[in-house]
Amino acid sequence: MKHLTAMNELSLEDIHELIEEARELKKRKFDSVLSGKFAANLFFEPSTRTRFSFEVAEKKLGMNVLNLDGVSTSVQKGESLYDTVKTLESIGADVCVIRHSQDHYYDELIGHVGIPVINAGDGCGQHPTQSLLDLLTIYEEWGGFAGLTVSIHGDIKHSRVARSNAEVLTRLGAKVLFSGPEEWRDDNNPYGTYVSPDEAVANSDVVMLLRIQHERHEKKAAERDYLETFGLSLKRAELLKKDAVIMHPAPVNRGVEIDSALVESTQSRIFKQMENGVYIRMAVLKRALLNGENKKRGDQAYVLFN
Amino acid sequence: MKHLTAMNELSLEDIHELIEEARELKKRKFDSVLSGKFAANLFFEPSTRTRFSFEVAEKKLGMNVLNLDGVSTSVQKGESLYDTVKTLESIGADVCVIRHSQDHYYDELIGHVGIPVINAGDGCGQHPTQSLLDLLTIYEEWGGFAGLTVSIHGDIKHSRVARSNAEVLTRLGAKVLFSGPEEWRDDNNPYGTYVSPDEAVANSDVVMLLRIQHERHEKKAAERDYLETFGLSLKRAELLKKDAVIMHPAPVNRGVEIDSALVESTQSRIFKQMENGVYIRMAVLKRALLNGENKKRGDQAYVLFN
Amino acid sequence: MKHLTAMNELSLEDIHELIEEARELKKRKFDSVLSGKFAANLFFEPSTRTRFSFEVAEKKLGMNVLNLDGVSTSVQKGESLYDTVKTLESIGADVCVIRHSQDHYYDELIGHVGIPVINAGDGCGQHPTQSLLDLLTIYEEWGGFAGLTVSIHGDIKHSRVARSNAEVLTRLGAKVLFSGPEEWRDDNNPYGTYVSPDEAVANSDVVMLLRIQHERHEKKAAERDYLETFGLSLKRAELLKKDAVIMHPAPVNRGVEIDSALVESTQSRIFKQMENGVYIRMAVLKRALLNGENKKRGDQAYVLFN
Repeated sequence: MKHLTAMNELSLEDIHELIEEARELKKRKFDSVLSGKFAANLFFEPSTRTRFSFEVAEKKLGMNVLNLDGVSTSVQKGESLYDTVKTLESIGADVCVIRHSQDHYYDELIGHVGIPVINAGDGCGQHPTQSLLDLLTIYEEWGGFAGLTVSIHGDIKHSRVARSNAEVLTRLGAKVLFSGPEEWRDDNNPYGTYVSPDEAVANSDVVMLLRIQHERHEKKAAERDYLETFGLSLKRAELLKKDAVIMHPAPVNRGVEIDSALVESTQSRIFKQMENGVYIRMAVLKRALLNGENKKRGDQAYVLFN
Repeated sequence: MKHLTAMNELSLEDIHELIEEARELKKRKFDSVLSGKFAANLFFEPSTRTRFSFEVAEKKLGMNVLNLDGVSTSVQKGESLYDTVKTLESIGADVCVIRHSQDHYYDELIGHVGIPVINAGDGCGQHPTQSLLDLLTIYEEWGGFAGLTVSIHGDIKHSRVARSNAEVLTRLGAKVLFSGPEEWRDDNNPYGTYVSPDEAVANSDVVMLLRIQHERHEKKAAERDYLETFGLSLKRAELLKKDAVIMHPAPVNRGVEIDSALVESTQSRIFKQMENGVYIRMAVLKRALLNGENKKRGDQAYVLFN
Repeated sequence: MKHLTAMNELSLEDIHELIEEARELKKRKFDSVLSGKFAANLFFEPSTRTRFSFEVAEKKLGMNVLNLDGVSTSVQKGESLYDTVKTLESIGADVCVIRHSQDHYYDELIGHVGIPVINAGDGCGQHPTQSLLDLLTIYEEWGGFAGLTVSIHGDIKHSRVARSNAEVLTRLGAKVLFSGPEEWRDDNNPYGTYVSPDEAVANSDVVMLLRIQHERHEKKAAERDYLETFGLSLKRAELLKKDAVIMHPAPVNRGVEIDSALVESTQSRIFKQMENGVYIRMAVLKRALLNGENKKRGDQAYVLFN
């Protein structure tokens, strides 16, 4: 049983294993190795993309899926997250995938519940499967991480993606650049160097844009402003290296973080990231639920298959 | 890959093929030909009946089902329908079934997304699978359409059903009568002749009642009035031909469009329409997802099966 | 076709058969005997626990599951429960599991719809599958019911659990004690004797706590008070017989009905009750959908299996 709550609990070896497993799964599309198991998806914050990505991953592994939306549950009746997860465990859930607005919500679970917890995003904390799908996408592009320059653009301070990615990319040997409005600098994140948007775009192999919380902007004018000043405008995109790729965790605010015309450009990997998310989550679920022995059988199966 | 957005994109041959396929499927109940495929149901307007009908159809075809309710999604975060569908396509959806309050919502999708879109109702536009299930129900009753008289009663102007059905029934050789309040006439729909409710009921082989939007009525008195003046009251039902059948897209407002006692009368096909909806949707899904070759294999399977 | 709406429609033989079936299913975990059937879960009141328990039960039986939440449905459009169930029947549902805030909601269904209805809780009425899982849990502990003393603590008057359990436990030969605030006595429930909390706890083989509706309490102070005066506080728990067990239908208000430290104590069966709920519901679903012949085949299968 292996939880996944934050990137820093994964060794470099773990990460490479997950990437390899995901690449294998991407070739085969389906793997019914978890057939008959039950996954419970607990999303206390709405998220189309992540929830469906996990659901597809689970179903491609043959699992039964239980979807719990935070609004219509006993949690409303004052039940703790711990009791909700223990309940699901008692009812037969084999793994819980959780998104919650509270940072480190999982601290009350790990070591106390009998099933693995997979963090699908906690408050302003971590979002490790997003980070892993980003790594898979970069790996597919470059075959590794050492020596790459990756720039992260936007709200560095409140972003789960910035937090998860900067640390692990540094650990993997990449150089991380940060860029964005002054008030969104994160003094607690030592893994990047702040540079201007132009400098970041011009020097990166991977340009990673963060989503602006639409709700915080009061005027369309402000958004237009953001694109020109900090976003990937058409003009700024001219600075891109020829083989650089554009990434974004989505959903994209077209015309805010990035000019709409660039979202599906040849250098964009935005929709590929979404595709990769399914396979990396399949890999994470297999890791969570299979012990060494099963895994070895899985590896042999690959051999027979190829 | 074949979309289905409106009835007028189907040739008469297409329609007959869908009806035949649905009748075959109704005999066999299940057909796992789409096993392993993913269907995404995007319902931005609530609808028990249509959503469940598609879900049952999908599961009877062996598909995995993703249900997206409009309220709890990234669409709220300002994402366009196009980006939502592209996301689902990236994640692995093989087909999207969409209901949306905006007329012609599909115009931004067709030709731009890589998976088929099935329209489950757009604004005051079309609802082609409802239309097809109506045709299947009429076909089962009469073995054809030419020479039949079909009357449509109620809000002709705002009804997706009236719009979809009048055109196709005319094309199939039936005569269409319209009947209802003056203010609900539709001058843009040339496929029917307006007559009095009594005349419509007395001369039709199929009496098709439309749902009154409960919300628009302020008083129960007005509803009582509607039944007597425009609906199928017990008194007016005495005018029905002996072999005429009663249809309604449901949900029925008992005592408004139709006297409650007639809903399950021997001449009513209302619940049969619902049953037929599942099989016509299975046929539409098979058409959307199978290419000629697969389809041929399907046909051979029928032969072996019989 | 066998409905299940209230405990008093089950004979003692029925109850013992359901318990035996559930125990068999618990050994085998899965039984695909209802593969291809469709279950519709209609929950007009929210309930994580019961809804998921039924969903897991249905999936372990190989069923397809349709989940209908009361808020986003045609029921809002003024459709009656009868028409909703008839619709689901027409669409292909083989059984309906219903929770509804109205007492005896099922009276308009039984005898009129063509599929079995399983009551998952009606207003202040019954909750028979909760009752059956309680009986299974007691049976596993004691091997029977005759001669046992079971105390039920809390809001006797408004509790579905108290109503369902007191009658059937008495019928099975157990002695039932009631305990709780004066204003929650139920003069219409003749199956228990009112005693003080201390006396109830000291003399019972099974201490069954009822959930306090959090909403009704205005102050934390009142809750603290409740625990000391009527709940299972640590102090009162010292009176427990050595082999007595603690039960609660959950969700538990820790520190109100029971001291938090006792919820997972060695004498608690609270999470075991949840586990048992899945298997008892599998047994109820099999009973609802299989006729005598199928059931016999099921029994033979057991023999072959062991």
